[in-house]
Amino acid sequence: MKKYLNLILLLLATSGAFGFAQTSQPAIIEDFKPSTLNQPGKEYPMVNSQGYVRFRIQAPLAQSVTVSLGLGGRGGTKLTKAADSTWVGTTEGPMDEGFHYYHLNIDGGIFNDPGALNFYGSIRWESGIEIPAHDQDFYALKDVPHGNVQQILFPSKSTGTSRRAFVYTPPSYYKDQNKRYPVLYLQHGWGEDETAWSNQGHANLILDNLIAEGKIKPFIIVMTYGMTNEVKFGKIREFDIKPFQTVLVNELIPFVDANFQTISDQKHRAMAGLSMGGMETKTITLANLDKFAYIGLFSGGTFSMEDVNNTPGFKEKVKLTFVSFGSRELENRRAGFGGGDPKVNAEALKQANINSVFYVSPETAHEFLSWRRSLREFAPLLFKD
Amino acid sequence: MKKYLNLILLLLATSGAFGFAQTSQPAIIEDFKPSTLNQPGKEYPMVNSQGYVRFRIQAPLAQSVTVSLGLGGRGGTKLTKAADSTWVGTTEGPMDEGFHYYHLNIDGGIFNDPGALNFYGSIRWESGIEIPAHDQDFYALKDVPHGNVQQILFPSKSTGTSRRAFVYTPPSYYKDQNKRYPVLYLQHGWGEDETAWSNQGHANLILDNLIAEGKIKPFIIVMTYGMTNEVKFGKIREFDIKPFQTVLVNELIPFVDANFQTISDQKHRAMAGLSMGGMETKTITLANLDKFAYIGLFSGGTFSMEDVNNTPGFKEKVKLTFVSFGSRELENRRAGFGGGDPKVNAEALKQANINSVFYVSPETAHEFLSWRRSLREFAPLLFKD
Repeated sequence: MKKYLNLILLLLATSGAFGFAQTSQPAIIEDFKPSTLNQPGKEYPMVNSQGYVRFRIQAPLAQSVTVSLGLGGRGGTKLTKAADSTWVGTTEGPMDEGFHYYHLNIDGGIFNDPGALNFYGSIRWESGIEIPAHDQDFYALKDVPHGNVQQILFPSKSTGTSRRAFVYTPPSYYKDQNKRYPVLYLQHGWGEDETAWSNQGHANLILDNLIAEGKIKPFIIVMTYGMTNEVKFGKIREFDIKPFQTVLVNELIPFVDANFQTISDQKHRAMAGLSMGGMETKTITLANLDKFAYIGLFSGGTFSMEDVNNTPGFKEKVKLTFVSFGSRELENRRAGFGGGDPKVNAEALKQANINSVFYVSPETAHEFLSWRRSLREFAPLLFKD
Repeated sequence: MKKYLNLILLLLATSGAFGFAQTSQPAIIEDFKPSTLNQPGKEYPMVNSQGYVRFRIQAPLAQSVTVSLGLGGRGGTKLTKAADSTWVGTTEGPMDEGFHYYHLNIDGGIFNDPGALNFYGSIRWESGIEIPAHDQDFYALKDVPHGNVQQILFPSKSTGTSRRAFVYTPPSYYKDQNKRYPVLYLQHGWGEDETAWSNQGHANLILDNLIAEGKIKPFIIVMTYGMTNEVKFGKIREFDIKPFQTVLVNELIPFVDANFQTISDQKHRAMAGLSMGGMETKTITLANLDKFAYIGLFSGGTFSMEDVNNTPGFKEKVKLTFVSFGSRELENRRAGFGGGDPKVNAEALKQANINSVFYVSPETAHEFLSWRRSLREFAPLLFKD
């Protein structure tokens, strides 16, 4: 477990949204448009067709305004004061496609960009921006039947509170009250919460679109908060999985099975998570193979033959292991992986006749486009029996 | 309609969160605690038992930091730089109980307080703070059965998009798939959106608690965005109700009736709204009395005998008119009301044998505690037939 936590810390430390090519940058094309994640009516931040981001901030009396988005470890993007007293600037190079968290530093304090919507990450509501991806169609809001995402409050005796989860029910759910569905429990990463997979991940739209294209059979997704203790920076090593395991396995799963049209046997239940959520997924599923048949780790670890051999019943009970990373994560950490090279591991499992899938998201880092794509790849492999 | 819009503008202009007594303020009691609406783990802003709010902002190089919360029209609360370079300050007097929007002005720019959660109001995500109310129990998260709030995306041909709504289903909803429920369509105010009644209003918790106490029969609430055009400050006079009426009446209601366990006749459908949402409610219900039987205007207008006499079928079809205001709104506007004095109007309707209820929320302004209480008072009066 300790080794695993160190891996997650390494992932966090070596990740980053900063996929600049090392060569000289192309000339900036002046076709900037408001980011799709701007607050209603806000012009800035803007994104151009190459993935450059331009910022404009009102703070006429400020001494300095910088944006965390831009060059990893090199202080982000420094804005300069324009003639009209606004602070303006453009990232030094194009950003990776997909979603990025960011914030402003104004006179030494951290604030959000008033132009952008906020998303929970880094244990705070951060500003968010979206660089349109060439394959964004798979998570676009389209004119197809839509499932619903609903907030539930479930009783948790072990933590003495009502806890919140979000439940995605597929479009057909309300049409036929006798139909029952498999369930995927889907976990966010460290510093995020149960809002992440809908807001940043578009899990609901990904499922809507896969269902509309006939690529998957409909299933339910349940997303809840993956921690039970107060979260602070640098305290991840103190994280204890057991209280959350109790919440998930003993409280949430029975509540969902009692209140939704689920198929409640092991063969129709999956769990997946990103980053820290992958760590949680691995630990909880391996300790509860009577409850989960399909397991996905998105940028959050790997399954080795050691895991298989140390877990009684693994070969009989596990119907799928799915492990994915963003390509930039693999580039960054080529020298070694906690738990071994994930591609080599996945191949070893396949040789041992375990249904093992390994996926690499092209040109993305430890960020949500990697995880949206991972869900798109993972979903069609689920609930085959 | 024009007169009505002017009333709303007047309400917006004369409202405010600034219920200071005009006499000298009591000594500040040093029992400040983190606001219940702070982001996880954040200490500031803090609130004391008298309703004073204390702020602390990190921005060591800033020239000036003020908070919009505090004295209406007098520049809010000016923070001063402490020895540790943080900016600190306390409101000059106690704030009214309940929820208040606010923001920071840092060196001439508007930003949110990084310590507080954000809520959509004033057509931006604003910081929010909660002054514990003496009657907060009715909207508290308690150990009672909870209904769900779910996001739906419904097709809207008239606007060419999928539009979002939130649907509250009561706790019993999933237990009996043959049971059907009445529906309340509940609208937010100007500058807010479909998230307001859950996030700021706690409509779901208010219903959960009323149901648990046996004070109401369960019903469904539907909350959607009440505008179809781009919203800008000062443009409320250009607002045209017709496109939204088409969305609500021709698109959303049929979608909800097709996809939820509703009783879809006129006698089991209500509409209410706050501020601008009250204006919308009045206009849409009076034009569609074949669809709505119960009508609530929360700080958003009044029903006069002129309305009754000018609307064919009013007396036969309307089962309830409910009009409410915060007491400070009435104090502020004692000289006159657009549409006449709401209390006098309500009394006139009663005299004409119309089921007319008038409610005043004690010591609150044009703010969410007025509207939470209005919903608490309104809900038990609904769906009596």
